[in-house]
Amino acid sequence: MYLGIDVGGTNLVAGLVDREGTLKHKASCPVDRSWTAEELTLQLARLSIRAAQEGGCPLEEVEAAGAGLPGLVDSGAGVVIKTPNMPFRDTPFRELFQRELNVPVYLGNDADCAAAGEYWAGAAKGCDPVLVITLGTGIGGGLVKGGKLYTGLGGAGLEVGHIVTHPEGERCGCGNLGCWERYGSATALIQQTKAAMEQHSDSALWSACGGVLENVEGRTPFLAAQQGDPTALQVLEQYRRELSYGLVSLCNVLFPEVVCLGGGVSSADESLLLAPLRELVHRGCFDKDHLPKVVRASLGNDAGVVGAAMLCQMA
Amino acid sequence: MYLGIDVGGTNLVAGLVDREGTLKHKASCPVDRSWTAEELTLQLARLSIRAAQEGGCPLEEVEAAGAGLPGLVDSGAGVVIKTPNMPFRDTPFRELFQRELNVPVYLGNDADCAAAGEYWAGAAKGCDPVLVITLGTGIGGGLVKGGKLYTGLGGAGLEVGHIVTHPEGERCGCGNLGCWERYGSATALIQQTKAAMEQHSDSALWSACGGVLENVEGRTPFLAAQQGDPTALQVLEQYRRELSYGLVSLCNVLFPEVVCLGGGVSSADESLLLAPLRELVHRGCFDKDHLPKVVRASLGNDAGVVGAAMLCQMA
Repeated sequence: MYLGIDVGGTNLVAGLVDREGTLKHKASCPVDRSWTAEELTLQLARLSIRAAQEGGCPLEEVEAAGAGLPGLVDSGAGVVIKTPNMPFRDTPFRELFQRELNVPVYLGNDADCAAAGEYWAGAAKGCDPVLVITLGTGIGGGLVKGGKLYTGLGGAGLEVGHIVTHPEGERCGCGNLGCWERYGSATALIQQTKAAMEQHSDSALWSACGGVLENVEGRTPFLAAQQGDPTALQVLEQYRRELSYGLVSLCNVLFPEVVCLGGGVSSADESLLLAPLRELVHRGCFDKDHLPKVVRASLGNDAGVVGAAMLCQMA
Repeated sequence: MYLGIDVGGTNLVAGLVDREGTLKHKASCPVDRSWTAEELTLQLARLSIRAAQEGGCPLEEVEAAGAGLPGLVDSGAGVVIKTPNMPFRDTPFRELFQRELNVPVYLGNDADCAAAGEYWAGAAKGCDPVLVITLGTGIGGGLVKGGKLYTGLGGAGLEVGHIVTHPEGERCGCGNLGCWERYGSATALIQQTKAAMEQHSDSALWSACGGVLENVEGRTPFLAAQQGDPTALQVLEQYRRELSYGLVSLCNVLFPEVVCLGGGVSSADESLLLAPLRELVHRGCFDKDHLPKVVRASLGNDAGVVGAAMLCQMA
């Protein structure tokens, strides 16, 4: 049995997961913002122990633990290098964790965990290579090849959000112009929706968000499009095109057998997102004899915990 | 000892290469365009035997042979699927080759061979991951990670030339709009140079190609730029920018330790290509703590033979 830990900014979740990637039990607790990195790590260890005990698994039967965090980790060294909105900074996570529970500890960022989870227990089961793309605040990506997570120099995973799709385009938080995530993330979709609403006061987008621009969410354009709103349909058409630019580039470099799309946006109606997007991606793929499957990630809210646990099986 | 075979449209070259990637001897012969795929394969086997014998290596000491071809190969099956300007089409290369010389046979496309060669015996020695980019008619790419060549679905290698850098840009031979190689290949540089010449009749580009537009080569803009020609300098500035868009995307996805640039264009003066390009790439890299080395590929004309031989060590 493995323990998987999903470290979020608001909640911590630990889960007991078997070797097939089935979540047997989970335990969670809120984050106390006053915790130091050391305290937070110890809390995570204790939460994991609780998940095992509540799940009826004696600690001797826990083979290893995996933790998924947003940000930069060095899994080899067992160190969390830095995370946004969390106290970790060159934190010797493994060492601290093992003070409470002495098992092998693996680390991954959240995009790696999503990829690991989908590969072992989700929509990408049995495929190789596997590319998992998460549409959220930015665009995250993880690649599984031959049963291992791809990592580059310094143990870094893919930063697919920073593919350049519009060389002279909008400024990204990273400093570059025209990064893919400025056009294809959930954040970008919300911005694009708001911009369209300001130009179309008659659009059904307004009623879809209660008439308040600030209430626009990733699902707002999909809600209005389901009612046939032309502005929303146009927003989504352009959004799918933006998604396709980065996906085509990734497919022509990595030749994945499957591309899994995750994140809240990916749960949209198949006919409004995945089906037309699949067509755009396939049209752009260089090798028409080896087209990737383009599917929705299937683990949903449990992806973080399951994926973190499955890191134990991928080292 | 290994045998490495470089299959070109005009010449065939076979080389005797040791386990360290040192070329001990090579033999070559011109291609007869009337040969069938079967005849061509048998010729390659005989040329390899000649290279071994002339190099003083008894055939019993040949451990394996590798062949590099432009186009699509299935190394696992030992089949050449298709090649441009050559008779191969689903040709059982390994089986035919082994009729003459019964050793293990490995296949790779030319971009894979370039990567294998630079990794074992060239500018990328000791680095991991290694990305080798070849600027030619198109843009080729090969990735070595953990001592293995990266391959995706169907054994395909990277088709980096078909990263989308200008979504609404020029039509590529593959059918897509705005592929990187339409802007960053040697072919593209020649086109960009010609276009600039047509607008600047006073440019030193004209004398650099003997006053004849059709004589423009990849080195023409570099020759004129060395004389300080402003038009040539402008052409190269834009060309480097185009190169950087694709390289930044690749670096942010793959996090290579080193990027080797090969192909005729890469032999240009350091100050006109590699030095300013390195700066552009580093500026665009997401993780400033792990910047890739950006260097010139070092194997030159022998890259194909050495790289093909080193395929034997990467399976």
